[in-house]
Amino acid sequence: MPFEPTDYLPYDFANRRHIGPSPEEMAQMLDRLGVASLEQLIDETVPKGIRQAEPLNFGKPKSERELMHFMRVTAAKNKVLVSMIGQGYHGTVTPPAIQRNILENPAWYTSYTPYQPEISQGRLEALLNFQTMVTDLTGLDIANASLLDEATACAEAMTMAQRVAKSKATAFFVDRDCHPQNIALVKTRAAPLGIKVIVGNPDKMDASKVFGALFQYPGTYGHVRDFTDHIARLHEHQAIGIISADPLSLTLLKEPGEMGADIAVGSTQRFGVPMGYGGPHAAYMACRDDYKRAMPGRIVGVSVDAHGNRAYRLSLQTREQHIRREKATSNVCTAQALLAVMASMYAVFHGPKGLKAIAQRIHRKTVRLAKGLETAGFKVDPKVFFDTVTVDVGPLQAAVLKSAVDEGVNLRKVGERRIGITLDEATRPKNIEAVWRAFGIARADDDFAPEYRIPADMHRKTDYLTHPIFHMNRAETEMMRYMRRLADRDLALDRAMIPLGSCTMKLNSAAEMMPVSWREFSRLHPFCPADQALGYKEMIDDLSAKLCTITGYDALSMQPNSGAQGEYAGLLTIAAYHRSRGEGHRNICLIPMSAHGTNPASAQMVGWKVVPVKSAENGNIDLDDFRAKAEQHADNLAGCMITYPSTHGVFEDIVKDVTKIVHDHGGQVYIDGANLNAMVGLARPGDVGGDVSHLNLHKTFCIPHGGGGPGMGPIGVKAHLAPFLPGHPMTGGGEGPVSAAPFGSPSILPISWAYTLLMGGEGLTQATRVAILNANYIAERLEGAYDVLYRGTNGRVAHECILDTRPFEKSAGVTVDDIAKRLIDNGFHAPTMSWPVAGTLMVEPTESETKAELDRFCDAMLSIREEIRDIEEGRIDPENNPLKNAPHTMEDLVRDWDRPYSREQACFPPGAFRVDKYWPPVNRVDNVYGDRHLVCTCPPMEEYAEAAE
Amino acid sequence: MPFEPTDYLPYDFANRRHIGPSPEEMAQMLDRLGVASLEQLIDETVPKGIRQAEPLNFGKPKSERELMHFMRVTAAKNKVLVSMIGQGYHGTVTPPAIQRNILENPAWYTSYTPYQPEISQGRLEALLNFQTMVTDLTGLDIANASLLDEATACAEAMTMAQRVAKSKATAFFVDRDCHPQNIALVKTRAAPLGIKVIVGNPDKMDASKVFGALFQYPGTYGHVRDFTDHIARLHEHQAIGIISADPLSLTLLKEPGEMGADIAVGSTQRFGVPMGYGGPHAAYMACRDDYKRAMPGRIVGVSVDAHGNRAYRLSLQTREQHIRREKATSNVCTAQALLAVMASMYAVFHGPKGLKAIAQRIHRKTVRLAKGLETAGFKVDPKVFFDTVTVDVGPLQAAVLKSAVDEGVNLRKVGERRIGITLDEATRPKNIEAVWRAFGIARADDDFAPEYRIPADMHRKTDYLTHPIFHMNRAETEMMRYMRRLADRDLALDRAMIPLGSCTMKLNSAAEMMPVSWREFSRLHPFCPADQALGYKEMIDDLSAKLCTITGYDALSMQPNSGAQGEYAGLLTIAAYHRSRGEGHRNICLIPMSAHGTNPASAQMVGWKVVPVKSAENGNIDLDDFRAKAEQHADNLAGCMITYPSTHGVFEDIVKDVTKIVHDHGGQVYIDGANLNAMVGLARPGDVGGDVSHLNLHKTFCIPHGGGGPGMGPIGVKAHLAPFLPGHPMTGGGEGPVSAAPFGSPSILPISWAYTLLMGGEGLTQATRVAILNANYIAERLEGAYDVLYRGTNGRVAHECILDTRPFEKSAGVTVDDIAKRLIDNGFHAPTMSWPVAGTLMVEPTESETKAELDRFCDAMLSIREEIRDIEEGRIDPENNPLKNAPHTMEDLVRDWDRPYSREQACFPPGAFRVDKYWPPVNRVDNVYGDRHLVCTCPPMEEYAEAAE
Repeated sequence: MPFEPTDYLPYDFANRRHIGPSPEEMAQMLDRLGVASLEQLIDETVPKGIRQAEPLNFGKPKSERELMHFMRVTAAKNKVLVSMIGQGYHGTVTPPAIQRNILENPAWYTSYTPYQPEISQGRLEALLNFQTMVTDLTGLDIANASLLDEATACAEAMTMAQRVAKSKATAFFVDRDCHPQNIALVKTRAAPLGIKVIVGNPDKMDASKVFGALFQYPGTYGHVRDFTDHIARLHEHQAIGIISADPLSLTLLKEPGEMGADIAVGSTQRFGVPMGYGGPHAAYMACRDDYKRAMPGRIVGVSVDAHGNRAYRLSLQTREQHIRREKATSNVCTAQALLAVMASMYAVFHGPKGLKAIAQRIHRKTVRLAKGLETAGFKVDPKVFFDTVTVDVGPLQAAVLKSAVDEGVNLRKVGERRIGITLDEATRPKNIEAVWRAFGIARADDDFAPEYRIPADMHRKTDYLTHPIFHMNRAETEMMRYMRRLADRDLALDRAMIPLGSCTMKLNSAAEMMPVSWREFSRLHPFCPADQALGYKEMIDDLSAKLCTITGYDALSMQPNSGAQGEYAGLLTIAAYHRSRGEGHRNICLIPMSAHGTNPASAQMVGWKVVPVKSAENGNIDLDDFRAKAEQHADNLAGCMITYPSTHGVFEDIVKDVTKIVHDHGGQVYIDGANLNAMVGLARPGDVGGDVSHLNLHKTFCIPHGGGGPGMGPIGVKAHLAPFLPGHPMTGGGEGPVSAAPFGSPSILPISWAYTLLMGGEGLTQATRVAILNANYIAERLEGAYDVLYRGTNGRVAHECILDTRPFEKSAGVTVDDIAKRLIDNGFHAPTMSWPVAGTLMVEPTESETKAELDRFCDAMLSIREEIRDIEEGRIDPENNPLKNAPHTMEDLVRDWDRPYSREQACFPPGAFRVDKYWPPVNRVDNVYGDRHLVCTCPPMEEYAEAAE
Repeated sequence: MPFEPTDYLPYDFANRRHIGPSPEEMAQMLDRLGVASLEQLIDETVPKGIRQAEPLNFGKPKSERELMHFMRVTAAKNKVLVSMIGQGYHGTVTPPAIQRNILENPAWYTSYTPYQPEISQGRLEALLNFQTMVTDLTGLDIANASLLDEATACAEAMTMAQRVAKSKATAFFVDRDCHPQNIALVKTRAAPLGIKVIVGNPDKMDASKVFGALFQYPGTYGHVRDFTDHIARLHEHQAIGIISADPLSLTLLKEPGEMGADIAVGSTQRFGVPMGYGGPHAAYMACRDDYKRAMPGRIVGVSVDAHGNRAYRLSLQTREQHIRREKATSNVCTAQALLAVMASMYAVFHGPKGLKAIAQRIHRKTVRLAKGLETAGFKVDPKVFFDTVTVDVGPLQAAVLKSAVDEGVNLRKVGERRIGITLDEATRPKNIEAVWRAFGIARADDDFAPEYRIPADMHRKTDYLTHPIFHMNRAETEMMRYMRRLADRDLALDRAMIPLGSCTMKLNSAAEMMPVSWREFSRLHPFCPADQALGYKEMIDDLSAKLCTITGYDALSMQPNSGAQGEYAGLLTIAAYHRSRGEGHRNICLIPMSAHGTNPASAQMVGWKVVPVKSAENGNIDLDDFRAKAEQHADNLAGCMITYPSTHGVFEDIVKDVTKIVHDHGGQVYIDGANLNAMVGLARPGDVGGDVSHLNLHKTFCIPHGGGGPGMGPIGVKAHLAPFLPGHPMTGGGEGPVSAAPFGSPSILPISWAYTLLMGGEGLTQATRVAILNANYIAERLEGAYDVLYRGTNGRVAHECILDTRPFEKSAGVTVDDIAKRLIDNGFHAPTMSWPVAGTLMVEPTESETKAELDRFCDAMLSIREEIRDIEEGRIDPENNPLKNAPHTMEDLVRDWDRPYSREQACFPPGAFRVDKYWPPVNRVDNVYGDRHLVCTCPPMEEYAEAAE
């Protein structure tokens, strides 16, 4: 009957989007768990004492259509002017083929960090291209696969310099021509480490007093200087020379390596990645071979697989996955993988000639602009420049800036009398004319002969991007197929569950992703006038308010652009609070053994001492040990860092006891927000005693992982900490900045905002409930086959669970690695391996997965258990079996088969799709070989030739 | 040196986008062909006598960035108002996941018509879902996989009715409440066939006088009438009842099958496909089982593969690929596959409950709107409606329409006194209030109790969309993976060359595709006020002017929305011209034997008699035969239809002789534009004697094939024919319309326009030259292995060549089918099979393919030749060899292997990628079985269960 009531509500489609199991499936799952309702399961899982008082109420959730309309209206409040502000952010042209096939392609953006190399060969190749591009352009030996932003890269370079310099000096020199945000960030990082930062004129640098120096190239006000002599002087004193260089300028200019630089850093933003009001984009770092093992961040290297075929992997990767805890001097974890891939593809698209032509055109345009100003009598500085000049306009500064805005152009305020003008790939002749008009000059951009303002001694004399990958045929057909081929080699969320504990690989919905591509979000300069970013302000204010409500905090900073950055910012905030009360001596941080590796690393970075706390038998924090340590260090207790629910996947009953102990002893409580997906709507870190938490928006709030970044790690704090949240030199006030841009990576915030708007308070809470349901369902189905290592009081796990695979090493010689690789045959990305407990697997399904997918995973895990049993009970050779030989490739099928199990068993175990089977492109990758033979740029041409044969 | 000149120009990237071979590759290819330059090759290929005098000059080509800016500016000239015009076009909400993963995904939009079922299982499944959706909603037995638009579907239904009706009447009845464009199109089609169209009140229809009748449901003015009795009367007189029904309304209303209808047609536009100013969207046709073999268009059916596994295919497909020439009564060829896939996914996303809820909401909103008007004293018609009402406003019609526009809403002008209002999924309460305000009513949309205006006897009483596919788990994660899995099963341009002769599968570049998604292009109603579509007007005018310049014609009509439609429109234009000169008796059309099958079919449709003309030995038109036939039929010669360069892939020297003969005998010359990709910039059909041509924008001008549509087939004509171009009832003037909307499928025109803007005149010409180079390179490389069947005077082929594979049937028992299927193993879509010469392969590489890809293809073809030789020379079993067993699947590798060749030979022949190998999901599909056991809806649930076991 047509008008019988349906249970399908207007917003139902939107809310069902994120909730994997259907109502019918949920009923089956609850039945299996022996509970009457989802609410009962939650009551059994989340301790009563910590449940939040009020349900989340964010008003009526929006339908997809309402959302898109609302986002359009908000976007329209941002005004897109032509940016000539420069200062490290430039207009660029994203090739549409890259936008469509990478940025807007779930195969690329939903993938995870390539810790499992066998299912990551595509993005590993793209990242290796990135590294090759960086080493070539900088003239250095080795590069990493991106850092968060140029300013943090500068700071990382400083601490790296301190690690590797033989100089025992404790000061660090910074070129006064560095971008202001770079200087500010270096200062932020230096302070807690006791490094003295000297900002000055490089010509007056006393190299004997510093362990290293950072120069900007070209300088923030346009100067192109040769730092060869400065670096030579540094080397005389066994100090390290660092150049922060614009990679596009290096196609024309003498490169850092040629000047003797030890380390180069910079931003690849202008390689086709939109400014996005500050991010995300990929910073780079390169260094001399001598220092490679001191370099922070991820490095892709070349190794071989079990059949000796070339295979890519993350090199030196233990540094990554088990970040070096208190021994670390960097907490870098998330990179900017997706953006690094885009930048590398931009280089592949244009090749060396194209990049050079782009740089040449920018320079010629800048010269024309300068000549127009000079001809009209303005004094233009410097004489030698690439894309940036400044003009002294005396008291007319404000008038000229305003006049330019009226002409549709943003210029840069430099000091009180000067105007900075930076040109880029996107600058058009009419923009140059607009600038002239802003200076009162009426002329057309057509009557200057070409001229260059770069003298011969500053010209680059070496080749770059000589590798064949940068000389591909540039027909779009070929490029499109290359991007598809790489994407097809990888297993991402668009094909299968990625059950990574603590990483919350949930749906990144299309509706949430779309606004990221809109020019009103992507084309804003981070330092544009505030009245041009009112849409951003509205979004950031509303999202911040919602996140405060969700977490129980009073204030929030969007600045940290990764989870680890959030930790660091949070601890800085606590430290500043202690200082403000005259307790700046407090420097002891209690951290449970099971903490994320970034926790102790972050504590280290704020100059604190880490005191580890034991775990009790049941995996909880050992309350007695905790209390004892707190008492012992009461005088100097800065705080503690805990994760809730715990990294063992359990809601600890004692969390309030823990936080009370810390408070009672004068410390502050940092609650790591990594597991917030188990809390939203049910409990709030701010309510259980947290003073500060970071939120991984790329976990709980739907920002995709992008193959290893971007991420966002805003921090929420209680009111007493609010005054100490990170400030920014371009916005004034507050403590030192932790990211290059005031709001971190704001162009991906529409994703998280859209998620909250689509779900509403009840939808967000339901997501949490179902995340817990899904985890408990897996624990239940695997019961008997695998031990779940830790459970809560009522035998429930939170949103993830740890499966104990250690017994199989003894019983069958099967390692956690064998199981992880075998899961590839079953069609899955492995759960988190060996963390937080070595030799175990931590599984987090998230609310996005359907029961069918959970069952497919459980079927796979159960069949693996049976395969282990076959070894245990002697039915198959312990060295030659499906587990040890996993993963199996198509090539294995083609080869002669002399194994004690069938091709069918090898390739189509339970879970594997038959028609839609995912095939890893390589067999198991040899990690030891890769680390011993470190190759981190594209292999030479001959190897391609060999491979082709 | 940084400022050495580079050969990389600003627009180089743009132009290189479409040209496959790099300059270095081109040099190698020319060398292989033994010519000194590309120009020399062209001189040897394109006869001097037909070369165009002036090079194309469209000004400076745009860079991608300039293009995007320019398109934005143009798009902004279109005003997006809320449309309540109705009349067959409705606002709809495209789920973002469908937009991103289908409409904007090259894997879906670059695929070809699924003639090769083994590499098309993904889109065949999606189209089968479409057919199932249509049969369910209409309550009929069988549906096709889409038609061009609702109006042509009505016309097709009429001619189909004439074919199947036992009634000998020659008149056709049309409900006066049909949409005006449907009535107009039926009249267009009926006239040349001698069918008398009676438009009237169905209650007064004389069923004894007609062979069929068409009713609109709901009617264009909103009426919901039960046609059961009318159809019963038709059946009494052995006539056919046709209902054109809105499929969304059928979720609430008694369905056509229940009323006894024999045929149902309609548009699935409102199933998530934007209005796009008229198209493209997918129309549907369904009928009773009795009539299935008379149904036009493509039908997907279920068959089995060589191992007995289920496999989808196009059923009855010889009708398609070798369209039935002069025996045809329909020339339908292109469908709207991509749009049908979108509509089917919309149904999968929402399921029956969701669709019903959407329809219910629309109805409730319409009732509220009506009550508001009634309460204010307006007379609202009809009493029984679904989503449309009309209001009598007397002389105030213009005032109310204008007032509505001021409120941001377009209403419909009905007659001289009435206003039509149609609501849809996208109508919001504030839109209803805006309408009220336009009628002078100030009230809020919140104070009416729910009420329904559909009486119980019109309620639908049967279930629909009961198949499990429409009850999938609707989590977006699951939906996204389903779309990806289907996409991965297919081989499209984003993975490999598709060397289809005459189909010109060239690059559809990302920059060209992007504007299609913009709301300024996608959200316009085709009958919106002209001043709201100024961006469209500018684009259509400029593109038309460019196409006229390219073809040498004087005027152009954008109305035909497929190539075959263009042919039909062109012939109608000629016929009208003859009539205008008192020569309406001219009805003889000369068509060479090698013509596209649509040619004679189109001639048939305008009531002409087809006189076939022989081919000479060399494949050219037999000039003597042509002259003889022309003389013989001089009194009645209407014209000829030729293809240039010929369908044999050759520039015939004699083309001007041919056209002169026709003109000398009073006829007009139709030149089929299918091979225009070999002419652009070099020669013009208008210069060699053509009076009219259609242009396949989906071939030469970059509109993607979308898995079998959309297409666009505008026609260019000489000035004397311009007055007779198709008119349209909504725009006034001219002869009858051929498409539902005045400009066919305008929302895909940005693609072709962008192509011309990016390439410029020289770029377009270079594309032609390289298309010819690529074809000649293939012909040269395959020389000796395969005979190229036809060549021009200097031994050159045009942009395609026919490879003679007939000898192998005799020498080795190898058919062209075996070669085509084996090419799948090699990683390629087969060339065109058995057309225009049975047993041969026609290869067209296009300019987009690189030399590397051409070489990969040639290597594959040469290795196949060696495999044939193995049979010829007795080295392998003629029945059990790689060719006969092709294509090989992954399953073959897993199975026991007892073949006289290795797995390696089977699966990795030359051409096949190793890591990125494309695997067909099924073995060779059994065509005979499929046609014998015609199943054209999703197989029942039990079969899924069986398959799962």
